[in-house]
Amino acid sequence: MDQKLRDYFIHNRERQLAELTEYLSIPSISAIPAYKEDMKKAADWTANMMRQIGWEKAEVYSGKGHPIVYGEWMKAPGMPTVLVYGHYDVQPVDPLELWETPPFEASIRDGKLYARGSSDDKGQVFMHLKAVEAILQTHGHLPVNIKFLIEGEEEIGSPTLPAFVEENKQLLAADVLVISDTTLLERGKPAIVYGLRGMTGIQIDVKGAAGDLHSGLYGGAVQNPIHAIVEILASMRAKNGSITVDGFYDKVRELSAEERAEFASLGQSEDAMASQLGVPELFGEEGFTALERIWARPTLEVNGIYGGFQGEGLKTVIPSEAHAKITCRLVPDQDPQEIADLLESHVKKAAPKGVTVKVTQFDKGAPFLTPFDHPAIQLAGKAYEEVYGVPTAYIRGGGSIPVVASFAEILNTPIVMMGFGLSDENFHAPNEHFNLENFDKGLEVIARYLFKLDGNL
Amino acid sequence: MDQKLRDYFIHNRERQLAELTEYLSIPSISAIPAYKEDMKKAADWTANMMRQIGWEKAEVYSGKGHPIVYGEWMKAPGMPTVLVYGHYDVQPVDPLELWETPPFEASIRDGKLYARGSSDDKGQVFMHLKAVEAILQTHGHLPVNIKFLIEGEEEIGSPTLPAFVEENKQLLAADVLVISDTTLLERGKPAIVYGLRGMTGIQIDVKGAAGDLHSGLYGGAVQNPIHAIVEILASMRAKNGSITVDGFYDKVRELSAEERAEFASLGQSEDAMASQLGVPELFGEEGFTALERIWARPTLEVNGIYGGFQGEGLKTVIPSEAHAKITCRLVPDQDPQEIADLLESHVKKAAPKGVTVKVTQFDKGAPFLTPFDHPAIQLAGKAYEEVYGVPTAYIRGGGSIPVVASFAEILNTPIVMMGFGLSDENFHAPNEHFNLENFDKGLEVIARYLFKLDGNL
Repeated sequence: MDQKLRDYFIHNRERQLAELTEYLSIPSISAIPAYKEDMKKAADWTANMMRQIGWEKAEVYSGKGHPIVYGEWMKAPGMPTVLVYGHYDVQPVDPLELWETPPFEASIRDGKLYARGSSDDKGQVFMHLKAVEAILQTHGHLPVNIKFLIEGEEEIGSPTLPAFVEENKQLLAADVLVISDTTLLERGKPAIVYGLRGMTGIQIDVKGAAGDLHSGLYGGAVQNPIHAIVEILASMRAKNGSITVDGFYDKVRELSAEERAEFASLGQSEDAMASQLGVPELFGEEGFTALERIWARPTLEVNGIYGGFQGEGLKTVIPSEAHAKITCRLVPDQDPQEIADLLESHVKKAAPKGVTVKVTQFDKGAPFLTPFDHPAIQLAGKAYEEVYGVPTAYIRGGGSIPVVASFAEILNTPIVMMGFGLSDENFHAPNEHFNLENFDKGLEVIARYLFKLDGNL
Repeated sequence: MDQKLRDYFIHNRERQLAELTEYLSIPSISAIPAYKEDMKKAADWTANMMRQIGWEKAEVYSGKGHPIVYGEWMKAPGMPTVLVYGHYDVQPVDPLELWETPPFEASIRDGKLYARGSSDDKGQVFMHLKAVEAILQTHGHLPVNIKFLIEGEEEIGSPTLPAFVEENKQLLAADVLVISDTTLLERGKPAIVYGLRGMTGIQIDVKGAAGDLHSGLYGGAVQNPIHAIVEILASMRAKNGSITVDGFYDKVRELSAEERAEFASLGQSEDAMASQLGVPELFGEEGFTALERIWARPTLEVNGIYGGFQGEGLKTVIPSEAHAKITCRLVPDQDPQEIADLLESHVKKAAPKGVTVKVTQFDKGAPFLTPFDHPAIQLAGKAYEEVYGVPTAYIRGGGSIPVVASFAEILNTPIVMMGFGLSDENFHAPNEHFNLENFDKGLEVIARYLFKLDGNL
């Protein structure tokens, strides 16, 4: 990175942190209706900052939910377009008494900026704005075109964003989507998340007799709905942990040798993980490490089961009903609807006689994966490495971020999740904070990344 | 039966019903402490009636619980001794507003005596006393020796009786134990219950991680306690309903051809049973009818299962725990402790890796069976047939009556359950009543039975 840019960050640090403090002082809690005006204020602040750094387009869209902010700088014709997604809303702050300093009065202690939203996600949104500002101030123009989409409903599940994205596909079209809402692997070790699992699920309701029956008077004569559901569930998984639903693994994209080597290089200790979780040993599909199973293999988990008597001691009843809730984590190229249908037909086939079995499908989310070796991923990794001085970890996430899956489905762009938080920064808890070491380094990483993308996508 | 005896019943009917009305007027509700004095009063009334009909021994034992009444007439040396068990306590009467006439003011409507305790069990205890009175009054002596054990805690589970029986084995020694606390098979069709199932059970507690885990962050890495308990439970039963716990059936006494024929002769419709219970079809061990399965085959039922999320919709959790409650109904000659131990070792062997499994045994009760062709049973059947004019049904019960199992274990006598109630007589509900047709016939049946036992046991 050129010296001008580095100097700019150093000389403007104090002002930028003062601006961030102002941004963080707006209590933009999306979950609590009383903060509706503050949501508007935070959206306006975000749009104003876009204008302040020199963009001609910065708009606040007011729809059914909290406002969505969109801004762009599109003066690099022929160059790639980068779409940055983030959110200006924050989590509630209860219990307030556990905060060492007020959540909306940012304060710095031990190199950490304490405030609600400092890490998740106002701080990281602000960094993208300030990296762009620095390039514009020092170079007069950006190496690429930039679009920002900053929403106000991430902490309540992004209920209105997918429709907005769907309706504004053209406006949001880009060559890469960058999201900074994740964490480093650990302090000093940057990480890029290039894949997330999707999800699908069903509820199974088994019904036997019209009411609970006395196990003495009827035991032996009727099918017990608990035994029936046990039989169904047992038929879905082998003892070794692999899923025995027909076709379940058919479309699973296998891990490449490079990915397996990358995961192995992270040096995750399975013994340490078992002891941290408090289990006698880890368990799962044979032939895969725990990390591989979490990040790149699909799962089928019974999340809840219930039927009959749950009190102290015993009650000699044959219950009239039994229920189970199942969700699957999916990996590319599994299709959530197809897997739900496979589960449903498996259950119906496995249903024993003497009971009726109903299956209800839950909401679904697609898995997402940007190929590990895609330039958008590899260039981001290089930008990290130049600043942090260590190899970037290329990882996946075992969970699902519905909004990311929506982007992947609707916009069909590669997605680069490059975060600057640390996992112990109390995102949704009292005393949320952001390590300023990663604020400073992150500004540089983002700026370097934009220069690297120039002509390379 | 001789004419003298028949005349006696006819000429004394009004007086006897007046005495029964007095007996039924004492609110001997064992479950409610406020009726403690009435319990004493009912016990005294029972003992006084024994003295009044001419017995020299009639005692009220006051121990930890409600009094136990014991009386005897032992002047037939060399003849068999009959022990009659019954109870003078009754169920609570709530909701009182549903009674058409007050529960402790007996009234006759349509040939039925309405009052709490009329059928269960004061009415039936009273019949035994009055049958003995009639023989003594008309013949001067009884054909057999008689002992009566009438307790006051049957409706609260007989907490103190087993210890009393254990301590008074000699006092209670008899050649046959007669209990009249069951029902006819249906109106006009007498039934003797010659066997009951026993019970044993376990609770299974499966523990995984220290807390619930996010199925995205950890799904695939750890054993899910619900899957583990499903695997354990599935290993205990085959799809055809037979139990696959090693040794479970080893000591089961097979039904004789005579018993199977007897059960079949009852003409039970399995389709009618399925439709009454509201199940698509009956289900159970192959090779047995539903009645055979309920009365003479052991069962293993999961009475309750629970773990993880039970609310509306889904929660993507890997629960830290899962639980199941199992009870088995047992038949001769299965031993409840042995079966509990077999279950426990089966579960421990079936427990998959990655979780810890705890087994807790529940209270146990032995099965009981007086051989179908035992003279004590067959003579009772004949006495019934002579009075009712139809064949007696020889049946078993699928449930357990703990006090009967205790008697069978401690006293080691044949047990004859010859009841005179009808199953629609509202035993534990408002408007309990007793059909006087069975009062009149029952007196004759009991008297005939005592004469038949003379020298035949």
